[in-house]
Amino acid sequence: MAKQKKTAITPTREENYPEWYQQVVRAAELAENSDVRGCMVIKPWGYALWENIRRGLDKMFKATGHENAYFPLFIPLSHLEKEAEHVDGFAKECAVVTHHRLEAGPDGKLVPAGELEEPLVVRPTSETIIGSTFAKWIQSYRDLPLLINQWANVVRWEMRTRLFLRTTEFLWQEGHTAHETEKEAMEETRLILDLYKKFAEEYMAMPVLIGEKTAGERFPGAVSTLCIEAMMQDRKALQAGTSHFLGQNFAKASNIQYSSREGGKEFAWTTSWGVSTRLIGGMIMTHGDDDGMVMPPRLAPSHVVILPIIRKEEDRESILEYCNDLATKLRVQRFHDRDVEVVVDDRDINAGEKGWGWVKKGIPIRAEVGPRDMANNSVFMARRDTGEKQGVDKDEFVANIIQTLDGIQQNLLQRALDFRAENTKEIDSHDEFVEFFTPKNKERPEAHGGFAMSHWCGGEECENKINDELSVTIRTVPFDRGETGAGECICCGKPSPGHVVFAKSY
Amino acid sequence: MAKQKKTAITPTREENYPEWYQQVVRAAELAENSDVRGCMVIKPWGYALWENIRRGLDKMFKATGHENAYFPLFIPLSHLEKEAEHVDGFAKECAVVTHHRLEAGPDGKLVPAGELEEPLVVRPTSETIIGSTFAKWIQSYRDLPLLINQWANVVRWEMRTRLFLRTTEFLWQEGHTAHETEKEAMEETRLILDLYKKFAEEYMAMPVLIGEKTAGERFPGAVSTLCIEAMMQDRKALQAGTSHFLGQNFAKASNIQYSSREGGKEFAWTTSWGVSTRLIGGMIMTHGDDDGMVMPPRLAPSHVVILPIIRKEEDRESILEYCNDLATKLRVQRFHDRDVEVVVDDRDINAGEKGWGWVKKGIPIRAEVGPRDMANNSVFMARRDTGEKQGVDKDEFVANIIQTLDGIQQNLLQRALDFRAENTKEIDSHDEFVEFFTPKNKERPEAHGGFAMSHWCGGEECENKINDELSVTIRTVPFDRGETGAGECICCGKPSPGHVVFAKSY
Repeated sequence: MAKQKKTAITPTREENYPEWYQQVVRAAELAENSDVRGCMVIKPWGYALWENIRRGLDKMFKATGHENAYFPLFIPLSHLEKEAEHVDGFAKECAVVTHHRLEAGPDGKLVPAGELEEPLVVRPTSETIIGSTFAKWIQSYRDLPLLINQWANVVRWEMRTRLFLRTTEFLWQEGHTAHETEKEAMEETRLILDLYKKFAEEYMAMPVLIGEKTAGERFPGAVSTLCIEAMMQDRKALQAGTSHFLGQNFAKASNIQYSSREGGKEFAWTTSWGVSTRLIGGMIMTHGDDDGMVMPPRLAPSHVVILPIIRKEEDRESILEYCNDLATKLRVQRFHDRDVEVVVDDRDINAGEKGWGWVKKGIPIRAEVGPRDMANNSVFMARRDTGEKQGVDKDEFVANIIQTLDGIQQNLLQRALDFRAENTKEIDSHDEFVEFFTPKNKERPEAHGGFAMSHWCGGEECENKINDELSVTIRTVPFDRGETGAGECICCGKPSPGHVVFAKSY
Repeated sequence: MAKQKKTAITPTREENYPEWYQQVVRAAELAENSDVRGCMVIKPWGYALWENIRRGLDKMFKATGHENAYFPLFIPLSHLEKEAEHVDGFAKECAVVTHHRLEAGPDGKLVPAGELEEPLVVRPTSETIIGSTFAKWIQSYRDLPLLINQWANVVRWEMRTRLFLRTTEFLWQEGHTAHETEKEAMEETRLILDLYKKFAEEYMAMPVLIGEKTAGERFPGAVSTLCIEAMMQDRKALQAGTSHFLGQNFAKASNIQYSSREGGKEFAWTTSWGVSTRLIGGMIMTHGDDDGMVMPPRLAPSHVVILPIIRKEEDRESILEYCNDLATKLRVQRFHDRDVEVVVDDRDINAGEKGWGWVKKGIPIRAEVGPRDMANNSVFMARRDTGEKQGVDKDEFVANIIQTLDGIQQNLLQRALDFRAENTKEIDSHDEFVEFFTPKNKERPEAHGGFAMSHWCGGEECENKINDELSVTIRTVPFDRGETGAGECICCGKPSPGHVVFAKSY
């Protein structure tokens, strides 16, 4: 079948990737900008995706012994100041509450009144406010480990925002744990990283590299930051989740002490970790195409849309009955941890427009049912991932639905794995490195190589130089770095114990 | 069996009801005060309860066609001002963001910097910010009805706070809908009220009266406010949920207009409705007793705790095996819409203390297993609602668990219904009315009558007079007010079409 030339999204990825992204978010009805600078409105289709992400992760957190709780939105300025690096990292971009009421000013217009003695910062992250609570909850080693997660909104006053990727307010989960020993806290940090990787790959069909951030890229106040990094279709890296080993820094700042088994007083070892609505941006840029969003079935708000094609009014009732029967037979089946979710879209609007609406939203399977399909006991099925369309027997369609959805899920993951493999290169020559990251076309700054696996001496100077010259950063230092063999730093030529991952990034 | 005299909670409800409440919240580990004025920390046991409330309500909202979405935390001051009554109602108690960063002041201490051109109010409720979005989403009658719900945190700067009942920040859901006709919007307002009533009674086992608020008690900007009102054990009323018919007030303020079927431009008719973490306060005060919280099984974070009683170390393994087997057999069963949730509490702490911990938390069923129980293939079971304790055959215990949980749920509802009936009185004499609401004991201001069903002329003056003299308000004007017959206002003697509900309240 000839592929349709006209795409639903203008511009295409090739033409203008950043603008394509904005258009997909809009066309798929995932989110939009609000009247509040940098804050987004998450629309029902986008929020349903977030609910599925939340449910999937929440189950994994609970299965590993974590409990949810909820802590205040506001952080007293004095709390934020307790950890010096931490406050430095967040002071430049935080919303500050200074008053607690409004009253009519001299010109009759409302102005802030009731000034607070101590300003409150809207949480950009909650290490300090949760730390002050942990200090109360933790008295003895018997209270450890303390494994808490919070689903919440946070605010960082970003100057340049982009829907899902970087917004002033965003939704996330933040885990905060306290442990008796350094080893346990480090194990927790890694456990969560592995859990994030599993979630990204199995649910989001988004392959990720794991490893440690360099000192310059660490979370403010952390001893070590681990991360998952994904490759987008413009070959740039997206940091999709982080897990921080905080050592005793925050325990000392918040005075989280416990009586040890030996009877002494010890500071706890803490961790924190989070993923956010940014994951949705990652999914769009991993799977989306020139016709819009492509939803991996495990997270898709709905799996199947059934589209009745009613040409004559007298067919309406029988076609709708046929469609509803089909929906019922699909809905009783389980796809992984939830029922197959089906929409019967019988809205009385133009059929072509209706079908394209669902293409743009990325629903995994569309099933059209017209009079001829009904006569043949069949449905005309389209797969969103491959664009493949074919008439199939209705009973077979029903019997194979789980297998089809699994096939789509696997195909999306494999496609993303292949794309990453094609755009990842081991580079040991400086010239090749520079060429790899130099855009082939000045109008398309994203037309660069992808991920370079190259040597690095460990020096901040080389890291900064590469960043300044090429806008390329070290995305992650792999845990198995040594295994690929030693070599010479791509920048200065000094010894390097192994490759690290260089890329342009979001 | 003789009832234990010593109670887990000091003071008892009789001794000091408000203090008893605070102690139950603490002892049941539901929540605690934070370092931020008026903001609470919701602890894991309390948050799990909220998750169950959220899941139950969310399912009901979705089953009636509502979709979830998410809107900004911040409201530009100019938006809030669009509806005059609305801003008057909230201006006195809102957190105002005026700056977007911190920088070192003259003395080196951090101070707010980067003053915003327009102050932002942390949402106390979202009618205005959602209204400005609805104005974009709604163009034609085909876009209606628009049925949206949001799960979010909101902030109202309360001067006197009490955990769950009145806190500066709280969690809630807020529904916002827009309709083509006045009738449809009024039907939606009532549909949600009935849904709230159903949830309160079937899930929370908390009976509620429904009706309309008087003009003085309306939501700022609403045309009509409907409510559910519950009676607490101190006979005071708790407003547990509200559903507002907003007429075209907010549609006009936010310019929510649609092209009608006739081709003209019309303002939409809107509603909003919400329940919050206050529901948890209502559950505590409906079911809690002098030993702590009592959880209705449908919302209990866990249904059963199994307590292994290990007296000799050599029994440990076999007792734990017996307990885990019991847990497995319980967990495969479904209690309404979720699996039976079981905790095997094998913590190595004092058995009495451990058992009391679960009593205070209000878990519906405790099952102790010691060597003798094991030998008899039995468990020693205690019901939290009745205090009843008895040895039961293990297989019978497993086979009857759903019935037992249902029995507890029904018993709690019936008990609350009986309590309300005992403390509700039709009063048509002014003297009796005054006596009914006058505390019998000055040290216990809560020792008054309860709900008085009395006549009211409809005048604000009488309403205010009763409030000033007795601190009694009209909680709700029943929809079936006429059915009980006409009479004379309890305050002024003028004609009244029927009884309304008077009570002291939270």
